[in-house]
Amino acid sequence: MTRDDAHTGGLDGHDDRLAVAGPQAAAEPDALVVFMPSGRRGRFPAGTPVLTAARVLGVDLDSVCGGRGICSRCQVAPGAGSFPKLGLTVAPGALSDWNAVEERYRAKRGLAEGRRLGCQATVQSDVVIDVPATSQVHRQVVRKAATARVIQMDPATRLYFVEVAEPDMLDPSGDLERLNAALQDQWPGFIHGPADAPLTVLRRLQPALRQGDWQVTVAVHQDHRIAPPRIVDIWPGFYDGGLFGLAIDLGSTTIAAHLCDLTDGRILASGGVMNPQIRFGEDLMSRVSYAMMNPGGDVAMTDAVRVALNDLALELAAEAGLDARAIVEAVVVCNPVMHHLLLGLDPVELGQSPFALATSNALSLLAGEVGLHAVNAAAGLYLLPCIAGHVGADAAAVALSESPETSDDLVLIVDVGTNAEILLGDRTGVLACSSPTGPAFEGAQISSGQRAAPGAIERVEIDGATKAPRFRVIGCDLWSDDPDFAAATAATGITGICGSGIIEAVAELRMAGLLDRSGLMGSAAQTGSDRMVPEGRTHAYVLHDDGAGRRITVTQGDIRAIQLAKSALYAGARLLMDERGVDRVDRIVLAGAFGAHISPRHAMVLGMIPDAPLDRVTSAGNAAGTGARIALLNRAARAGIEATVRRITKVETAIEPRFQEHFVAANAIPHATAPFPELHRIVTLPDITFNDGGTATSGRTRRRPRH
Amino acid sequence: MTRDDAHTGGLDGHDDRLAVAGPQAAAEPDALVVFMPSGRRGRFPAGTPVLTAARVLGVDLDSVCGGRGICSRCQVAPGAGSFPKLGLTVAPGALSDWNAVEERYRAKRGLAEGRRLGCQATVQSDVVIDVPATSQVHRQVVRKAATARVIQMDPATRLYFVEVAEPDMLDPSGDLERLNAALQDQWPGFIHGPADAPLTVLRRLQPALRQGDWQVTVAVHQDHRIAPPRIVDIWPGFYDGGLFGLAIDLGSTTIAAHLCDLTDGRILASGGVMNPQIRFGEDLMSRVSYAMMNPGGDVAMTDAVRVALNDLALELAAEAGLDARAIVEAVVVCNPVMHHLLLGLDPVELGQSPFALATSNALSLLAGEVGLHAVNAAAGLYLLPCIAGHVGADAAAVALSESPETSDDLVLIVDVGTNAEILLGDRTGVLACSSPTGPAFEGAQISSGQRAAPGAIERVEIDGATKAPRFRVIGCDLWSDDPDFAAATAATGITGICGSGIIEAVAELRMAGLLDRSGLMGSAAQTGSDRMVPEGRTHAYVLHDDGAGRRITVTQGDIRAIQLAKSALYAGARLLMDERGVDRVDRIVLAGAFGAHISPRHAMVLGMIPDAPLDRVTSAGNAAGTGARIALLNRAARAGIEATVRRITKVETAIEPRFQEHFVAANAIPHATAPFPELHRIVTLPDITFNDGGTATSGRTRRRPRH
Repeated sequence: MTRDDAHTGGLDGHDDRLAVAGPQAAAEPDALVVFMPSGRRGRFPAGTPVLTAARVLGVDLDSVCGGRGICSRCQVAPGAGSFPKLGLTVAPGALSDWNAVEERYRAKRGLAEGRRLGCQATVQSDVVIDVPATSQVHRQVVRKAATARVIQMDPATRLYFVEVAEPDMLDPSGDLERLNAALQDQWPGFIHGPADAPLTVLRRLQPALRQGDWQVTVAVHQDHRIAPPRIVDIWPGFYDGGLFGLAIDLGSTTIAAHLCDLTDGRILASGGVMNPQIRFGEDLMSRVSYAMMNPGGDVAMTDAVRVALNDLALELAAEAGLDARAIVEAVVVCNPVMHHLLLGLDPVELGQSPFALATSNALSLLAGEVGLHAVNAAAGLYLLPCIAGHVGADAAAVALSESPETSDDLVLIVDVGTNAEILLGDRTGVLACSSPTGPAFEGAQISSGQRAAPGAIERVEIDGATKAPRFRVIGCDLWSDDPDFAAATAATGITGICGSGIIEAVAELRMAGLLDRSGLMGSAAQTGSDRMVPEGRTHAYVLHDDGAGRRITVTQGDIRAIQLAKSALYAGARLLMDERGVDRVDRIVLAGAFGAHISPRHAMVLGMIPDAPLDRVTSAGNAAGTGARIALLNRAARAGIEATVRRITKVETAIEPRFQEHFVAANAIPHATAPFPELHRIVTLPDITFNDGGTATSGRTRRRPRH
Repeated sequence: MTRDDAHTGGLDGHDDRLAVAGPQAAAEPDALVVFMPSGRRGRFPAGTPVLTAARVLGVDLDSVCGGRGICSRCQVAPGAGSFPKLGLTVAPGALSDWNAVEERYRAKRGLAEGRRLGCQATVQSDVVIDVPATSQVHRQVVRKAATARVIQMDPATRLYFVEVAEPDMLDPSGDLERLNAALQDQWPGFIHGPADAPLTVLRRLQPALRQGDWQVTVAVHQDHRIAPPRIVDIWPGFYDGGLFGLAIDLGSTTIAAHLCDLTDGRILASGGVMNPQIRFGEDLMSRVSYAMMNPGGDVAMTDAVRVALNDLALELAAEAGLDARAIVEAVVVCNPVMHHLLLGLDPVELGQSPFALATSNALSLLAGEVGLHAVNAAAGLYLLPCIAGHVGADAAAVALSESPETSDDLVLIVDVGTNAEILLGDRTGVLACSSPTGPAFEGAQISSGQRAAPGAIERVEIDGATKAPRFRVIGCDLWSDDPDFAAATAATGITGICGSGIIEAVAELRMAGLLDRSGLMGSAAQTGSDRMVPEGRTHAYVLHDDGAGRRITVTQGDIRAIQLAKSALYAGARLLMDERGVDRVDRIVLAGAFGAHISPRHAMVLGMIPDAPLDRVTSAGNAAGTGARIALLNRAARAGIEATVRRITKVETAIEPRFQEHFVAANAIPHATAPFPELHRIVTLPDITFNDGGTATSGRTRRRPRH
């Protein structure tokens, strides 16, 4: 036994317990304590509380009450028997017997078999102590994605229970100053300097201290920046009602948010609302134009989005059964135009070259500064940095979620929304751009389009021979040709086509020979299908007819909207590949609110994305939202993404002539410039051309020549 | 000539000018530059601008435009001839000839004889350069006081003119980030890190940059705390319209403020308003009671004082001909109850033992946080620290103004307001307490009382023989027995008695034998004066009768109010002397809004203050207001007073039995416990006693026995 191991100072108070440990104790007074899973170890005098030992060793063992046997966050599981690899045997009685505090806690609130309260159980002899994940502050949360990853918990706002000294007329000081002294004293190393209290919190400080008989719980915010800590909230006595945060993905078309538990990272509620700015313009540039043409237009749009954010916060809190004031953190990711409109900044400069942002750095604000008053009055709001005037905090969030800067192979990440954010890179460097796809991919600008909601057609197949469709709607697992389909969808009805549905429909129309390479639809005569019906001077395909006069069709206009959107997306990706000097990428990650639902095969038929092996095309789900959630739960991730964004090379599509060239060339299905070697292993596209006269010039189906 | 002198780096651009200086220049290329009055010296290559040399040497030479010949703040006066003490002779042509920029400036805006623009004139050979006070950033401002002192200018908010790089799509960054880069680059060492911009300022950033063709002037706030600098305001192009600050003395009865120029420290306007909280209670404890008894009462009082502060700010700005939004700094000093009510904190704890403050430390806020919306939206508001629950930021401001902690002799500082703040100390230590004098000293609770304003009686003399008064009113230099007095006061009238007037009146009544030692007034019969008139069961003295039925009298109630106030004041001072273990003080400083107007002789007759040689009793005027002004103009003073306050020993009068003893003993005029050896050299007080029956038991005038 050596003294080389970590040894605690300030434990002299345990010396008298040491004396009762007998003769051996005098010779070898210390017990070896090994914490698992960290493996950290050290020697401590008999009588040292497990929580104290954990703190001395820097072991991640949670506590809100500061060791008073109230919060039970410090639960540990002592081992028993022999641990040859650790070189130690745990004798019975290695931890102290149950004390009254533990007994009371077990009787009142229950304690799982084998668990002890780390603040009450004291070390008596060599022992191995397991810290279960639920007792770790920095526990890891598995996030849903194609490849499961973890988020390490390290939120900016945490709860601290403290006993505050009573005021003393002979040594007068403010209650806040004594609270800060208590935090420094009882939570050494946790709070970096005296915390500020906003006046709204300061106003409640004195009543809380007296009501709690000088014991209070405070929520303290400390992020990664050089700024004083901030007391966000205060409760009399011990409070463990939880702290919550909102991860907000503020899109041009939809606003989505997760309400998360800041202790364990769980998502308690998720939801979305339409962005009410839609009434000022469907796409971003329409809104910028609106601001330019209408004095005060930007203010109206700012007001609209702030109202929607508050509504969403209240709705999610209600769904989770919480008071929205328990939401003490929010993270927002969004494109630059939404970024400026949320902040109350006129977006006019973003609508014209050189697309200058008012500010590009990350922002740490109070939620109230952007009008988010539904949540806690002192809640922090973190906005990820923007990458460039067209590449926003949403792209930064995708980068945070997908970490292209750590990828060994060359990855193309496409976040499909109203604007597409595109990242291309690996550990040698990352390029980024944004491409104006418009809202067609989200079901807007589509004749029967709607957002993804129950009743919306999300999957489509068209039989090559009969030209008859079958489809699935959101909220029902059956295909439309299933006998039980009508009954199963009676409640929702069949209401329209969402983004993934229209993509599949267009690709299927092309594969079924109902659409030519240029995107022109054939007539009933040209195609030999009575599913094709006249629609003005063009044709439309009847996807669904309810027999009562209501039809869901795919029109020539829908095809054109999708063509524009997919050309823009493809051109952006190609531009980055040009910059990088490559013709192919190793893998593709589809992200975006509906990225999870796009069929890679259909996307490739459409020519949305460059050619790649199908099994190397994965979905990351709502990566921007995931990035927001990571930044919400881990403050170090904020510093990390800020550093990453500074190193990303930005490519501006709007001024790049090659973007226009790629865009024009990408209009066809599939387009001229794409080699598509992979695609041709899985689909055969009919080489047909329809003319306006309604006669097919070619009905042959042949294999496209390889380039 | 050695190279030991400071030598500038980064001036290589001047090397080509160096070449034209001829053969000597090659051997001794550098010119010796000596700046006066600092005496700082260094050698610089010929061609170095004077401003550059000053910056390299750390010479305090102002500039707002950053050396572009726009602002003229860097004016210098070059010397000529021989300077034996400096060991150098200035040859003709030691500075460069006038250049076009200087000529244009002189033609357009004028330049005093002998002055040059430091950013344009370049050093050619050895030269002595005087920096006039008006060109120093840290110039000194003489402040009015009995002993003239100076304030060194070092305001927290300053103007900076910068040229900002235009946005570049190939290297995108936000306008704010480029502005910060320009500040760091063009003002090296001035701004400590990137400045934050509140959203209200950020909103104006992009238009300002474009309107100013990428030249803007920003006001940047940096105080003594660890916090990012803050951009308070922004103007397109060059702005030199000035920055202004408010020094606010927020008293229980009156709110006084100075509007100051933050460049030169000048007071542009001063004014005061009644504190509208008076309607909730005249003294502090009444207001605390109001808050306790009336739910929401504290909010009503907070609203009232905030409205008054805004009104005062607008009024002073209008008087100075300024837009109130040019006010970018405010400093507030006040007692703890006002402190809490201004901040929106319930003062209830200040009304009961142990008189706990919600917070005692100094506060750096935004003016808008305390509802001061009349000034610039991003203006800072600094509140000095409180010393204790009864000893507020006003006492701290008095300490800042009078610096007892640096005094060689033992000084008693008494700030007479509604509450008296009392400091006793020297460089070995300082004690502080507060004493509840009530508002009588400010003319409140006095039958004919009023605040100090034109028409108020401020000086009183009563003839010992005839018992007839004469007096002076504010706004007129004549005494009331002057034949021209009536005409001179016709405009204002004679409206009442202000604080200094009532103190003199009571002291004079006592000296004239109309008041006995216990404070009882005699009847006309007892005193033989028809100036004494019945007033209920007591008597009153007619100070003025306008012949039209309107009288200004001093009543028995007035005497009692003054007795209570002076006893409280005296008892507080005595308590500190007890703590210090002394019976005498070396000198006394009277401070307070009306401290300047109190006659020390009358104060001593009353027994307001302990005995001291009359010539060691001085007035500091409104020392709290002066302290506020110092903190407004010099940010280092903020750090200084925060450190001083931490070292002050607080004495709580409310729980100290000796305070009550001193208070009771101090009721008489003069009181029992005062030896008053100094006083007896200057006045003789009649030893008389009136009883309620209206008969004087003694009319003799005799010398009080020495103790």
